[in-house]
Order: sequence, then structure tokens, then C-alpha cells
Amino acid sequence: MPAPLLSLDAPLLLQQIDALGRIGQDAPESGRTRIALTDADRAGRDQLVKWMRALDLDVQVDRIGNLFGTLPGRADGPPLMIGSHIDTVRHAGALDGCYGVLAGLAVQRAYRQAGQMPQRGIVVAAFTNEEGVRFQPDMMGSLVHAGGLALQQALDTVGTDGVRLGDALAQIGYAGTLEPGTIRPQAYLELHIEQGPVLEAEGTLIGVVEDLQGISWQKVSVQGVANHAGTTPTRLRHDAAYAAAACICFLREQVAAAPPGTTLATTGSLRLEPDLVNVIARQATFTVDLRDPDAQRLQAAEQRFAGFLEALALREGVQIRTEQLVRFDPVVFDATLASRIEAAAARRGLSHRRMTSGAGHDAQMIARIAPAAMIFVPSRGGISHNPREHTDETQLIQGAEVLLDVVQACLATP
Amino acid sequence: MPAPLLSLDAPLLLQQIDALGRIGQDAPESGRTRIALTDADRAGRDQLVKWMRALDLDVQVDRIGNLFGTLPGRADGPPLMIGSHIDTVRHAGALDGCYGVLAGLAVQRAYRQAGQMPQRGIVVAAFTNEEGVRFQPDMMGSLVHAGGLALQQALDTVGTDGVRLGDALAQIGYAGTLEPGTIRPQAYLELHIEQGPVLEAEGTLIGVVEDLQGISWQKVSVQGVANHAGTTPTRLRHDAAYAAAACICFLREQVAAAPPGTTLATTGSLRLEPDLVNVIARQATFTVDLRDPDAQRLQAAEQRFAGFLEALALREGVQIRTEQLVRFDPVVFDATLASRIEAAAARRGLSHRRMTSGAGHDAQMIARIAPAAMIFVPSRGGISHNPREHTDETQLIQGAEVLLDVVQACLATP
Repeated sequence: MPAPLLSLDAPLLLQQIDALGRIGQDAPESGRTRIALTDADRAGRDQLVKWMRALDLDVQVDRIGNLFGTLPGRADGPPLMIGSHIDTVRHAGALDGCYGVLAGLAVQRAYRQAGQMPQRGIVVAAFTNEEGVRFQPDMMGSLVHAGGLALQQALDTVGTDGVRLGDALAQIGYAGTLEPGTIRPQAYLELHIEQGPVLEAEGTLIGVVEDLQGISWQKVSVQGVANHAGTTPTRLRHDAAYAAAACICFLREQVAAAPPGTTLATTGSLRLEPDLVNVIARQATFTVDLRDPDAQRLQAAEQRFAGFLEALALREGVQIRTEQLVRFDPVVFDATLASRIEAAAARRGLSHRRMTSGAGHDAQMIARIAPAAMIFVPSRGGISHNPREHTDETQLIQGAEVLLDVVQACLATP
Repeated sequence: MPAPLLSLDAPLLLQQIDALGRIGQDAPESGRTRIALTDADRAGRDQLVKWMRALDLDVQVDRIGNLFGTLPGRADGPPLMIGSHIDTVRHAGALDGCYGVLAGLAVQRAYRQAGQMPQRGIVVAAFTNEEGVRFQPDMMGSLVHAGGLALQQALDTVGTDGVRLGDALAQIGYAGTLEPGTIRPQAYLELHIEQGPVLEAEGTLIGVVEDLQGISWQKVSVQGVANHAGTTPTRLRHDAAYAAAACICFLREQVAAAPPGTTLATTGSLRLEPDLVNVIARQATFTVDLRDPDAQRLQAAEQRFAGFLEALALREGVQIRTEQLVRFDPVVFDATLASRIEAAAARRGLSHRRMTSGAGHDAQMIARIAPAAMIFVPSRGGISHNPREHTDETQLIQGAEVLLDVVQACLATP
């Protein structure tokens, strides 16, 4: 006899997204802040574990703090994994990461409520420190899980606040015992808001993410000479603040000229020393975030910037040091999974398009050890990492339903 | 019978400069930090008062904390004032301000050691908060003394650390009772290191400062939209960090084109919000320091910048607010005093040149209520507001001797 039809408990999913979003909330209208391995992150994790237990899942925590909730399957063998993260940036929206994790629970709940056992186990994963705000690199938990970063090295990472990651993890009580990478999925799916404007702009409902752009993060330190702002002729200055500004303007020129959907450049963090109105800056430290779906183009952009720095240092008589904080080549996702997502969206009559992920996601790490793909839903105004991040509830539900369908399709195949 | 010849106690002057420079000292090679109305400033003031009492001066403190040490004269009538400041920037040199105050004491000491009483009183003034690091505007004490800023308004100023100036002043025990402006000098002299490279570059020993350039300090706040660095197409960004960088580059272009000795532009302070590597900056707050000896040119530079901000706000879709922190028109010093300085330098056979002061000084405030002028000595490398600030001891002595001669010349005339 055919298995009873699975259906999603939409109200409960929305309820949980809302409830998780209230944890670590900032001032009204200022979103929430649950930076990795802080007390707020702990509170979020505690809530998630509670919900996992309510579904009677087998809850496991590994040594880097990745959280797994497994719904057992009829057959053994590698489970299907649905994952994302619940840590946030400062003043974040409620959806980034959390939506994917809670939609995973909703899928497991659909089986529970139908009294049905999946053909194989379904694991929902919440990976540690995806945002990389306090500890770098970002996507750290999934990277360790995939074997791309040694556990000890990750635990020894020192945060922007000088705290060692391993200590912070123990501090919030999520230093588990499971060896990272133990759970090797048969396939990995991640549902996420687009965090970009493409789907909304086109009026498309489902993004079939077939690849993910490469990311290069550099920290640039400019050493100039502090001097009096009123007496130092322009030609005799070694102004670290100007040098930093020149870099930002150069990068903007470069990407303004680049075709849409190619290179992006951002300087989001910049600090001056001594940071006084009437003193020429002795030092400027800033970050450069370069992204491109094409590996060659990304490298070329990095090289052009390096060349500019060299010329600038000579011209301004400053010393410039760069440090690579993060570097990930572009990732191509699994073609079969992508077509399954496409098919599921089509069956439900939802408009869809193939697309590239502009953001980094845990999926790109898990793609190293298992077939992986992502499902996107629209982000209003393309706004994310911001309290104004928003996706309509219907769209959130539609995305979760596509995920449910794809999960069933995956489990139906041996 | 002729008064015995006055001579300067050079070793003691150098000793006092060194001793004051040790108060508030930072890590080795990092200079000293005695920001106005901090405990370090208090310690510096205590030392200065001790030295004034050792000269048996009449020590007075006014309600804004200006410190006066008066050597009585034979005749009544307005005294001659020698002044500067002993507060510092962060990681400062030992000379800026302190040299002028301590040279004033050296002049008074010359009279004491000769057992001679000056024709009229000689007041040495150490003005409160000349640097304007913690409380703005800078040159505040002399500005209040000259009636350019209401006492109450000055006392109510809130510092960068949120502390009210009046409270900080009481806290360090220098909230005096004398009404600001009570001591109205017959003339004002200020001896200072150049804080610029001109004298050293020319091999000239004495700068006869006949005017001082105008200063305009603005705080610029750019309101953009925080957004995801990897998913927001360049054309859809409202990037506060880029807008700030574009301003800094614009200002550099402007002054690079300006003739030497005219407009200078500096951005010494810049902060981003949320200041994260992968988030487009929602807000940038930075300072603009514009200076020019010519009032019209200064105003024109301000206007060109305002025009640029308007166009930039439109182009980038950001909101830009500016706030004038400080604005002083250029000052022309007293011609008679300038010639006396010139004559004194000539008599001692010291090379000298007329020049403009690039930095703001208390002298420009006192010039509102009395004839004023300044004497400059070379600064090695033109470096100031920096631990590497340096002037050769011989030059420090030569400058103080010129000051002594000019004081005698001033007192010789009714």
C-alpha cells in the first residue's frame, strides 16, 4: 500500500522561526544578535535541542559543536542530511540559516505526524560558526565536518575578543564528544533565503542553486606616518587613511566595470590609528571581500588588487601588508540534486530558475564529501544581514514544501 | 644704572621639558598621553604649579582651568603674557605646547636669578584643552579667556567618553574661581616648535609667525544600507564605506592640485557600522580637517566639498549629514611684535623667516583681545603629534633666548 501523503505543518514552522528570532533580540527594530559561541548562541542552541527532542530525534553534538538531530530510517546506510546554521551576524534578520534548519525539522515532523518512517535516516544539522563574525574562517563547523580544517586548529582559533574558540565552546556547554565527520550523508540539502535581489526582481519563487561563487577575504594593513594635519604639506604625507580610501575606490572602479553576476568587492571593516581629527593616520587596517563564480576571474581580481597595492605603497611611501583570512574557490553543486529541485518546483507549479549563490553556505563545505545542492526563496529587496531581512510567509512555506518533495525523491532512490 | 644683563638657565629649561615629558608616558618609544582633564593632565598641572611656586609666582586658576603664574612688575598696568598649553594628543612628543610654557618660566626665572623686577608683570599661561582630543573645540581655554566661547557652554561640553567637561575639571581639582578673561595682557607671545618641515628644510632657525591659517573641522555621517557583501550587485549598493572613501579621495585630488602653502585636507578619524568583513557598511562617520591661510580659499574648499557630497549622496543613494565641529578664520598677528621678533633674531645672528602657522595655537585666540605673535623653532622631519617629535636642544635654547629678548623689548616700551 502507498505511503500516506506527507504534509508540512506550516504554522508550526513559522512559529518556530519567530520564536528562535526572539532569542538574542536587540533593541526594537534592531534585529537579533547571536554571534557564534556567545550566551545568545547557547540560548538558541538550547531551544533547537528542545525542539529536536520534542520530535524524539537522536541528538548528537560533535567536538566542534555541530548539532545533529537524526530521525531514524527503515534501512541503514548513509542518511540524508538537511543543514544550515543558527548563529547570526550583529543585528541580523530572523531567517538567514535558521530557516533552513527549522525547515529541516518541519520535514522530519511531516514523517512523524504521518506516522511514517523514512526509507533512510534524515539528519538535521546546525553547523557551528557559519557567519565568521567572532571566529574566522566562517562556515567553520561544516568545514571541519568535511575535513577541510583540522579540529585542533579550529578549537585553537582566537576570536576578535581574544577568546579561544575551544574555551568559548566549552563555556556554553556545546563541546560534544562526537568526532567531526562521523555522519557522512548520502546527500546534503540546504534551504536558504537568497540574500540577494534576483528572485524578487524577476518574480521567481524558487532558486535552483547549481553553483556558488568563490570567496577571498583579505586583511590589509597600511603603515603610514602619524603627523600634524595642519602643517604637513600634502606631498610630504604618508597618510594611511588616504591609502585605504584609494584602495576602496580602486576596487569599486574594478567591479563597476565588471559584467553583472561576476566580480564583487566589499570593504566592510576599516579602522584607523590613532583615529584623531587633526592627526594624519599612522595606520589603517581594513578588510577586502572579493567574490566571483569563476575561479580564474577571482584570481585575476586578486592579482589586479595586489598590483595596485604595490604601486600605491611606492607612490604614498607607506608599507602595506596583506593577510588572507579566508579563501574558497567557486563550488559546482550536484547536477542530479539540482534537477530534482527543479522537478519538484515544476510539479508544484512554482516559477523557478537556475542560479549561482553569491553568499557562502555550509553546503559548499559538505559538497566536498557528499552530493549537495541548495534551494533559494526570495529575499525582499535582496536585504540580508540586516533587521529588515524579509521573505513572505507563503514563500517560506513553498520553499519548505519543495524541500520536503526533494527529500522524498532522494529517499525513493536507493 | 643699567639693569644687570638677563641670562637664561638653559640646563634647567631642558631638564623641566624632560621631566614634564615623563608624566603620562606610554610604552617605551610610544611617547606620552596627557589628554585634557585626565589624571595624567592633573599630574602635569601639579608639576607645573610646583615649578611656578618655586619661582614664587602668584598662581591663579580660572573657572575653565586655565593656569596663570604671575611674576609681579615694578609698575601696575596690563602684564605681558607668555602662553601655550601642556595637554597632549595620544602618544605625543614632549615639546608641543610644553616648550612654550616652560620657556615662559625660564624667562621669569631669568628675572628672578638676576634679582631684577620686570617693568610690568609677566604672566605665564597654560591654557586648558588646546588639543581638543577629548573635548571640542580645541584651543578651548584660550578661546574662553578671549570671550569667544561662553564659560557655561564650555563647561557643559560632553567629551568623546561621555563625560561633562565641568565635571572632569572638578574631578582633577582644577576648577578655579578666577573669572576667565580677568587677566588682559598688554601683549601675548607664544614660543612653539613649528610642527612642520619648512624651517628645517631651509636650515632656518627662527620662524617669525605673522599669520595663522584658518581651520574648518567637519564631522560627516553617511547613512547607507547594510547588506550582504556576496549577493548585492554593485549597482544596487548603498555603501557608506565606499562613500567615505570617495570623499577622502576627492579631497586629496583637490589639495594635490592646490598650490603649496594653501589648502590642506585630512581625514584622521573614520568609523564604520557594523564594521564587519562581509556586510556592506550601513554607516560611516568621519572627520574632515580643512586648513588654508586665506579665508576665501578656505571657504571655497568647503563649498566644493559640500557640492561633492550632494552629488555623491544622489549617485550612491545614501544620506549624508555634516556637522561643523570647529571653524576659525585665518588670523593675522601683530606687525610690531613680529618685527620685534625679527629684530631679536637678527641681533643674535640667528637665521629667520616670516611664516604662516599651519597649526592652530592659543595665540590665535588671545589675538582677539591683545596684540599677539609667535616664535617658531624647527621640528625635525616636520613631525609632531608623534613620539618622534624632536627639536635640537641648541635650537630650543635659541628660541627661548629670542623670547627673552622680545619680552625685554616689549617691557622697555610703555
